[in-house]
Amino acid sequence: MWKDEVRTNMSMQWQFRPLDRGAMDAAQARLDDLIKPVGSLGLLEKWVVRLAGIQGTARPKIGRKAHLVFAADNGIWEEGIGTVPYQVTAAQCENMVKGLTAINVLCRQAGAEVRVVDVGVRGDVPGVRACKVRPGTANMARGPAMTRPQAETALQVGFDQAVEAAGEGVQLLGVGEMGICNTSTSAAMLSVFAGVPVEQVTGRGVGLDEDLFARKKAAIARAIQINQPDPEDPLDVLAKVGGLDIAAMTGTYLGAAACGLPVIVDGFIAMVAAITAQRLAPEAGQAFFLSHASAEPGVALAAQMLGQPPLQLGMRLGEGTGCPLLMGLMGAALACYEQMGTFSQGNIDAENIVEFRD
Amino acid sequence: MWKDEVRTNMSMQWQFRPLDRGAMDAAQARLDDLIKPVGSLGLLEKWVVRLAGIQGTARPKIGRKAHLVFAADNGIWEEGIGTVPYQVTAAQCENMVKGLTAINVLCRQAGAEVRVVDVGVRGDVPGVRACKVRPGTANMARGPAMTRPQAETALQVGFDQAVEAAGEGVQLLGVGEMGICNTSTSAAMLSVFAGVPVEQVTGRGVGLDEDLFARKKAAIARAIQINQPDPEDPLDVLAKVGGLDIAAMTGTYLGAAACGLPVIVDGFIAMVAAITAQRLAPEAGQAFFLSHASAEPGVALAAQMLGQPPLQLGMRLGEGTGCPLLMGLMGAALACYEQMGTFSQGNIDAENIVEFRD
Repeated sequence: MWKDEVRTNMSMQWQFRPLDRGAMDAAQARLDDLIKPVGSLGLLEKWVVRLAGIQGTARPKIGRKAHLVFAADNGIWEEGIGTVPYQVTAAQCENMVKGLTAINVLCRQAGAEVRVVDVGVRGDVPGVRACKVRPGTANMARGPAMTRPQAETALQVGFDQAVEAAGEGVQLLGVGEMGICNTSTSAAMLSVFAGVPVEQVTGRGVGLDEDLFARKKAAIARAIQINQPDPEDPLDVLAKVGGLDIAAMTGTYLGAAACGLPVIVDGFIAMVAAITAQRLAPEAGQAFFLSHASAEPGVALAAQMLGQPPLQLGMRLGEGTGCPLLMGLMGAALACYEQMGTFSQGNIDAENIVEFRD
Repeated sequence: MWKDEVRTNMSMQWQFRPLDRGAMDAAQARLDDLIKPVGSLGLLEKWVVRLAGIQGTARPKIGRKAHLVFAADNGIWEEGIGTVPYQVTAAQCENMVKGLTAINVLCRQAGAEVRVVDVGVRGDVPGVRACKVRPGTANMARGPAMTRPQAETALQVGFDQAVEAAGEGVQLLGVGEMGICNTSTSAAMLSVFAGVPVEQVTGRGVGLDEDLFARKKAAIARAIQINQPDPEDPLDVLAKVGGLDIAAMTGTYLGAAACGLPVIVDGFIAMVAAITAQRLAPEAGQAFFLSHASAEPGVALAAQMLGQPPLQLGMRLGEGTGCPLLMGLMGAALACYEQMGTFSQGNIDAENIVEFRD
């Protein structure tokens, strides 16, 4: 079985502690006691309850926050399917290390530390976490993107980053990516997983014209046709038509879930990685919090498989930029939970309590 | 003409300064120079550009923020269409003054001051801004909710609150409501404005069962049938089947727009007020920023008329609780605008600039 195979290869056992139902019930009881109609904080309530379940306490905290960006290049770039040179992957990583990119600014606002992890950039980037598995994948339109052991190694890199963050006391984790052409690898993987045509899940990425868009779709279709990834074997799909960034993200989602560390899934590429993680271990999904739905057409299908992200801000720059925005909203949810008045403290007089709670 | 009539009755002339195109172009140019694909911050960029246009500067600020909650009771409550006693309006206002409700907590998080304005609560509430036009409206299922002059007065209350906030240096305004049965008045108004059946825009509010829901829809339909509001005359609709809270919110949107004060429109009731404001003065809409789409069925139709709110958090507690959440996101947008690296500073080397910008 592939699942046991992976588990054996991973340095850490995947033990997913079930959600703490007692903590969740206690959290829901407190939420129901807040002076508002029952359930009326919507998703904010659901976040609080699940945080309680994951952290195993009716007083969950998201004080310390971190955001991981996994960077890697993709060999399919060689097909000439994009307008952006692959060197931008390395250049933007450098800018991230310097604190100049959107994800840096947004994480500062949210109080989250940014960690840039080189899991497969072509060329060296000073200042990143050096975990390069290989300098970019091979061109999947002509053969497998990487070997299965390489995919496992990248997965392990991501897994270990989550374990390290959890060990340091991080209580909420964001995950992003930087990798030119990774909308192509994501589209390929989702097409295989869902058994749908490439056209249905492929978008224009960073502004392709009609010709380049057609070439992109053809290259992705060719990659699937040549490699014949097995949809029942997530690691096979990752290795043959995935990317090192997606593999590492998949590992981080698994690692976070294994550590009881809530983790945010942001945008199309991340959603594909989260689907991969859930296929490797369905129980991992309990730790995932969806943030932003990017404009990529595959998001609609991915949302059917994972749930609908609550933010629709039309962003399409990657880096996991929706994660710090959701961190802010989750912080607001916890603030309501902790600071609002309650019926039991008498903040609405007795006559009205029953009716308002109904 | 009703429009001139209103303008004459209002103490302040409605002069809507057009958006400053120069400031908007300068803001867009700076956004395009940030190290990211052009346009890829999506709505965050559109917010920054419009803030620049409204405030007339390429360096817009939203440092000082305030949130107005207009509270009023609705006579249609007497039809027995709800599970919540009308006294909850006053009780929640008291809790707001004490700082205990969701809107207080969320505004503290966002750095916004909460101002509770009694524009028509039955009974007195200590500590609110006392601007009561009348103690609740009449039962619109049996006659007009209020007179036209009363609707104008409530509108003026809201208008003046916006003018006052702008005069104090508030740079971003949230607006909410507290008024038992105001999903009914909103549904009635939207049904009239859009010429659609009551069923299409009426929801269960705070958890109605099948019987009460049917009674609610029948009462709203009866209100429209008895009063025959003129869809071409927004003040007639407001007076006959609206509410004092909605009238004041309408006035605030107009006042904010007239002052060049960006204002957030949150949820179903607010969206109906914003539609009313736009019908009184189409150019007012340039100052509106949509936040959260509540679960009310009328939101879909209102969104067709105003645009789609970007947040889908399933909240349904009113108070304008989506406003402080959007304030946080708008703050994040401005932070990106101000703090990100730029191409012209050389943060991506020359070779890559052109391509990445494409």
